[in-house]
Amino acid sequence: MIQNKQCRLAKRPIGMPNAENWNIVTEELPELKEGELLIKTMYISLDPAMRGWMNEGKSYIPPVGIDEVMRAGTAGKVIASKNPDFKEGDFVTGGIGVQQYGISKGEGLVKVDTSIAPLQTYLGVLGMPGMTAYFGFMDLGKPQEGETIVISGAAGAVGSVVGQLAKAKGLHVVGIAGGEDKCKYVVEEFGFDACVDYKSSDFKQALKEATPKGVDIYFDNVGGDILDLLLTRINRGARIPICGAISQYNNTTPVKGPSNYLSLLVNRARMEGFVVFDYAPRYREAVIDMVGLMKKNQLKAKEHIVDKDIDAFPETLLMLFKGENLGKLVLKVAQEDEVK
Amino acid sequence: MIQNKQCRLAKRPIGMPNAENWNIVTEELPELKEGELLIKTMYISLDPAMRGWMNEGKSYIPPVGIDEVMRAGTAGKVIASKNPDFKEGDFVTGGIGVQQYGISKGEGLVKVDTSIAPLQTYLGVLGMPGMTAYFGFMDLGKPQEGETIVISGAAGAVGSVVGQLAKAKGLHVVGIAGGEDKCKYVVEEFGFDACVDYKSSDFKQALKEATPKGVDIYFDNVGGDILDLLLTRINRGARIPICGAISQYNNTTPVKGPSNYLSLLVNRARMEGFVVFDYAPRYREAVIDMVGLMKKNQLKAKEHIVDKDIDAFPETLLMLFKGENLGKLVLKVAQEDEVK
Repeated sequence: MIQNKQCRLAKRPIGMPNAENWNIVTEELPELKEGELLIKTMYISLDPAMRGWMNEGKSYIPPVGIDEVMRAGTAGKVIASKNPDFKEGDFVTGGIGVQQYGISKGEGLVKVDTSIAPLQTYLGVLGMPGMTAYFGFMDLGKPQEGETIVISGAAGAVGSVVGQLAKAKGLHVVGIAGGEDKCKYVVEEFGFDACVDYKSSDFKQALKEATPKGVDIYFDNVGGDILDLLLTRINRGARIPICGAISQYNNTTPVKGPSNYLSLLVNRARMEGFVVFDYAPRYREAVIDMVGLMKKNQLKAKEHIVDKDIDAFPETLLMLFKGENLGKLVLKVAQEDEVK
Repeated sequence: MIQNKQCRLAKRPIGMPNAENWNIVTEELPELKEGELLIKTMYISLDPAMRGWMNEGKSYIPPVGIDEVMRAGTAGKVIASKNPDFKEGDFVTGGIGVQQYGISKGEGLVKVDTSIAPLQTYLGVLGMPGMTAYFGFMDLGKPQEGETIVISGAAGAVGSVVGQLAKAKGLHVVGIAGGEDKCKYVVEEFGFDACVDYKSSDFKQALKEATPKGVDIYFDNVGGDILDLLLTRINRGARIPICGAISQYNNTTPVKGPSNYLSLLVNRARMEGFVVFDYAPRYREAVIDMVGLMKKNQLKAKEHIVDKDIDAFPETLLMLFKGENLGKLVLKVAQEDEVK
């Protein structure tokens, strides 16, 4: 029998999650039934949205239940199949969760072609963060050549893709990230025109200087004070896609609402939320477009791979909230040669 | 020579305006020059936006300068003209300001037909508040028959028109107003399906009961806690036109940002600002539509007329912030028979 190590939600967090919130358990996998397939997890996606899934209460998807395996996007290999649509050796992405193995009936699984891009890229640029970047930018951002876009969380999985897409569209692209090294990385690796360090004492002035023509699109991944500051920089008719608010996810006090929201009125501007899953019928369109950009070297896939075991999930998740990742954060839980 | 009494801005207010902020002065009118016309002010429009015009700082229009006549929409009669486009006896609306007489070169003046509607209605339903209601509702609200709209400031000049337009479009229309009497008025006079009293202790529950299918459009005139509450009631794809934030205009502390703005994300919803002046090229379209509705008795023009002198402007303005008006608030500063 195969032993399956899992990370389960033990307790809902208040503020930043810690060891108490998790249970690492190992259980035996049952036999495959007719129609099922067995997947060995190779990469686990770490996403800011996970923090929201851990909370009680109504959201765009139900919360993860107490004692359930933590929800996660994963990429893995089919190692046994009693399902005619999948065969041993297929690479698939899906929501297997934070565990070494998953048994599935095939629902929600997508076969991926590792000759186009490495498996982990299907959790990044060609996965949920990439789709989020693409539709948030294209559909809500409504970019026009020559406009200025500012992107917070610029070194992250979504922000880094938005910036590259915006460069390809001919926008003036300014990132916001934490720390000099990250900012340098955003400019040098992802080709942003500029990146300003929100931890720096002259952040406001630097942002102003980097956006001499104001801001037409602010792609918001962080919320909080940065959203409030950007509201003072927007141009008439600006669009603010609300992708997330990582600065607020671990708050133990109420979320900080944007005090400067009346700038929307003065500037006839718009703040709009979206959820990537709504665009599922159009993912193919985005993938084709982005693979094209990757081939022209206009879009780089950068995964930040943490090569550890399932046990390492709780600490690896915190890297997101501490801003320790550069590009898409993934946990690699199996070696190629482990996958029989 | 004609004596012209004026209300001038003496000092920028902190918080609620008071007597110190104004100077009532009387000066002699100069002789009319070639191309000019003289207007006797009959009605002065009182609008929440005036509070913003009194503040220093960048907005959608420059602030009123210290010692300048207070900006105001007005309706009056041409009593002398050296301008070929206007003749004595014409009724006009325009921004003459808070004074008994205005000399104009005709710019920004609109001749109005008092056989279609009484003069004061051109400051209400057929004036700036009506245009604000029309375009905010139609363009940003994107109403669909059967949807639920909630309107704050429902007894006010803009809110009362939005509600009537929404009823005519077949929406379920819920107002929010302060006090039982106002709520009764909103339902009985303006035909809203329901109106909930935000001063009542069971406001939240009453709002919930009045919107059993959630909220598709929230037309926000007030901001603050009510905006935050409505963000918890919106449906997927909801639209929130930001028309104003009267609850915040006299704050001496920072504006309260909407803490629940991440509901925009969860619900794929939109919060959008607008300024009525942008729609000037389309005012005619709105007037035709609204006169049609008035003829069918689907749109009532209700002006709250305060019949006093220019001196009464400062205290009359405060009625808006105390919520003492029912319908469009206007100050009547001349009698028909005074106008020679």
